[in-house]
Amino acid sequence: MAFIKKPVTGMRDILPGEMELRVRLQGIIRETYLRYGFTEIETPLVEHIGNLTGKQGGENEKLIFKILKRGESLKRSLETFGESLKGDDAANALDGGALTEEGLRYDLTLPLSRYYAANSGQLPQPFKALQMGPVFRADRPQKGRFRQFTQCDIDILGDPTNLAEKELILATTEALHNIGFDRYDFYVAINDRRFLFELIRYAGFPEDDAEEILITLDKADKIGAEGVDKELSEMGYAEESILKLRKLLDGCGTDAAGVKAFASAIGTETAMNAGENVSDIMDSVTGFKGRKIRLKFDPTLVRGMGYYTGTIFEIKTDAFGSSVGGGGRYDRMVGRFIGQDTPAVGFSIGFERIMSILMEDGSGLIKNEDKSAWLIEKGMPEDRLKEIFNEAGEKRSEGHRILMVWMAKNKKFQKEGLTAQGYTEIREFYINELKH
Amino acid sequence: MAFIKKPVTGMRDILPGEMELRVRLQGIIRETYLRYGFTEIETPLVEHIGNLTGKQGGENEKLIFKILKRGESLKRSLETFGESLKGDDAANALDGGALTEEGLRYDLTLPLSRYYAANSGQLPQPFKALQMGPVFRADRPQKGRFRQFTQCDIDILGDPTNLAEKELILATTEALHNIGFDRYDFYVAINDRRFLFELIRYAGFPEDDAEEILITLDKADKIGAEGVDKELSEMGYAEESILKLRKLLDGCGTDAAGVKAFASAIGTETAMNAGENVSDIMDSVTGFKGRKIRLKFDPTLVRGMGYYTGTIFEIKTDAFGSSVGGGGRYDRMVGRFIGQDTPAVGFSIGFERIMSILMEDGSGLIKNEDKSAWLIEKGMPEDRLKEIFNEAGEKRSEGHRILMVWMAKNKKFQKEGLTAQGYTEIREFYINELKH
Repeated sequence: MAFIKKPVTGMRDILPGEMELRVRLQGIIRETYLRYGFTEIETPLVEHIGNLTGKQGGENEKLIFKILKRGESLKRSLETFGESLKGDDAANALDGGALTEEGLRYDLTLPLSRYYAANSGQLPQPFKALQMGPVFRADRPQKGRFRQFTQCDIDILGDPTNLAEKELILATTEALHNIGFDRYDFYVAINDRRFLFELIRYAGFPEDDAEEILITLDKADKIGAEGVDKELSEMGYAEESILKLRKLLDGCGTDAAGVKAFASAIGTETAMNAGENVSDIMDSVTGFKGRKIRLKFDPTLVRGMGYYTGTIFEIKTDAFGSSVGGGGRYDRMVGRFIGQDTPAVGFSIGFERIMSILMEDGSGLIKNEDKSAWLIEKGMPEDRLKEIFNEAGEKRSEGHRILMVWMAKNKKFQKEGLTAQGYTEIREFYINELKH
Repeated sequence: MAFIKKPVTGMRDILPGEMELRVRLQGIIRETYLRYGFTEIETPLVEHIGNLTGKQGGENEKLIFKILKRGESLKRSLETFGESLKGDDAANALDGGALTEEGLRYDLTLPLSRYYAANSGQLPQPFKALQMGPVFRADRPQKGRFRQFTQCDIDILGDPTNLAEKELILATTEALHNIGFDRYDFYVAINDRRFLFELIRYAGFPEDDAEEILITLDKADKIGAEGVDKELSEMGYAEESILKLRKLLDGCGTDAAGVKAFASAIGTETAMNAGENVSDIMDSVTGFKGRKIRLKFDPTLVRGMGYYTGTIFEIKTDAFGSSVGGGGRYDRMVGRFIGQDTPAVGFSIGFERIMSILMEDGSGLIKNEDKSAWLIEKGMPEDRLKEIFNEAGEKRSEGHRILMVWMAKNKKFQKEGLTAQGYTEIREFYINELKH
């Protein structure tokens, strides 16, 4: 039987040119984060299905790659499963986890929380974690969205203060700076989840509808203020509430003073605390002298994941619609594992988004290394070949990159190809050459 | 519901100390291979189930993590599957691939062959590929063997000559040299698969039994020559054949001259070609002046995978029982994808094996970076905090690694912990300090 040569649906092969850039970017990002005191860790790509489907991952839980049980465990499950095996019931049972006890992770945050819960005795406190690795979502394939993609996260666990948020923002913006992303004039949009619920109460919306109102509010940067108001109106909410919300949002400044004014307008203790938190972060970070760091308070920033409890942020640029990174505080996730909450906050770089921007942009980041290609005439005697190996060995041990290949019949074509691959020096070795 | 905090069975969390060493080793290995003209690539971790179960992976095909179909495709399969759903039949159907169209890759060689078949028009010829990444085998969990582990492979596709084998051996031994593995006095055991079949014919064994005879022969380094002879005798083979095989094997030298004598003793054209191949490789590589490279001809080296067609090799040390790497020529695998054979040869480093040796050995490879911890008294005023951020920012941008944390109540304990984590400098910042 012939094999299939295309990758599986929604996943892709990474060709040498892109791979070189990926490795270089990952190296720069890693080095930046290490300088901020983060330590790198790794969790398995496979996770307990119960952890993955525990209502922490929002929409992503519908997109899990589930792994079939094996051996005896499969046989036992089949006995139970057999009775329900009719049409949609069977499909639903399988979707619900029958025949499955493991799945591929859909993000790095849930496995990190498990990791911290399992290993906290052996970890520094607070724990500053760096993770880079693939995650999986069985999304409908579409341009620029893949079923396997790399995430790059930093998280601080065990620090309840916003020193954690400040360090995350400093580190992430510096990583973006170091990979040359400044040219896109990015900024960090910031908000506090606590504001969102206060806002709903303040404007007089029914509190039970908070989730769906927030989903609409979150669309502000796509459908605009008018679009949000129209949608809320169509959903049947009182015009008075919609107007009150609109007035508050429209009057809101994007700097630290704006945050304070916003909090005062709502006026509750929770709002004042959130205001203190966000304005303090903005104040600290924008005072940073090393680089210009832009922060903008955005009271319509929501972020999808249900697990956020405080500060939330997103990296945006005016040049591109979607965000290129985001994160926030999730103080209650570790508690799902050990019964005791642990303060936690994380920032994730949208590595694939950044890669696709830099690839389309013909980025100057792809620099040529010092690379030589040595073309050897076919039939070169063994003794001479040994000498060539030795010469190459010496240069390689000094750090030079040397490709050793047989000379092709069409040498001109071969040399053009090598030049296109970035070989800056091409040497030719002939059987009858004079020793040089 | 409480979440499970242990990793899934057979997989593990990687703690900071080990991770640091892993990243460092991978960096050194990558850099070494780049100097040999290899280019790094990546394939998806998920592969077509038909490719994985196509009789290329030997025993590993029994250990595949299979992914459950989703949505409509799952519903359609359930309709067909339903009828056979009784006890073992159902389990066998699922094992056979019902409800599954994808699985996790169990090695890097099969995906590379698919990759080459799919992308060869965009790849240099010959193509020298470097891959580092996780593979998955649902093996019975046991000490030192995990269900997810990292492989690190180099392969040359499109070169029919043994220049490819020579480069692979030079590069792999140099990578091991560069990570400090010389202290284990490793050597490369080498053989040619073509010898093995000639050997069976020469000794007069039934050719149809070749596979099982080779499985016994492969145990030579575990059960010894006597053990092999005894097992063959118990399997019912003629004493004459066993003696003839034994005499040939015992008389065999391990150097290039030994290979030639061995080939001549068998005397067929195929054996002479294999002999020419192996002795030529040994001659070239042992003549290398940069480092001492030890090669030993081992006519009992078999290697499990069915796809090898010519040269095979393994990295061994007298200090450890099992091999720490291996590879060989597999000229017919790419043909399974495109109907046309492509010469191919690869060498894989047993990354996890090497990691566990270095970790147990308290290796000197874990070096201390220049790392500072800055302890900040809680309640530090915002203005002073900003100054500290700026000072840290300056040092970080110069490459220093600085951890910024709140001073703990038990400062002595905190400082001891930081020293244990490798922080060589600890600075303290107090609210009432004099400006320095």
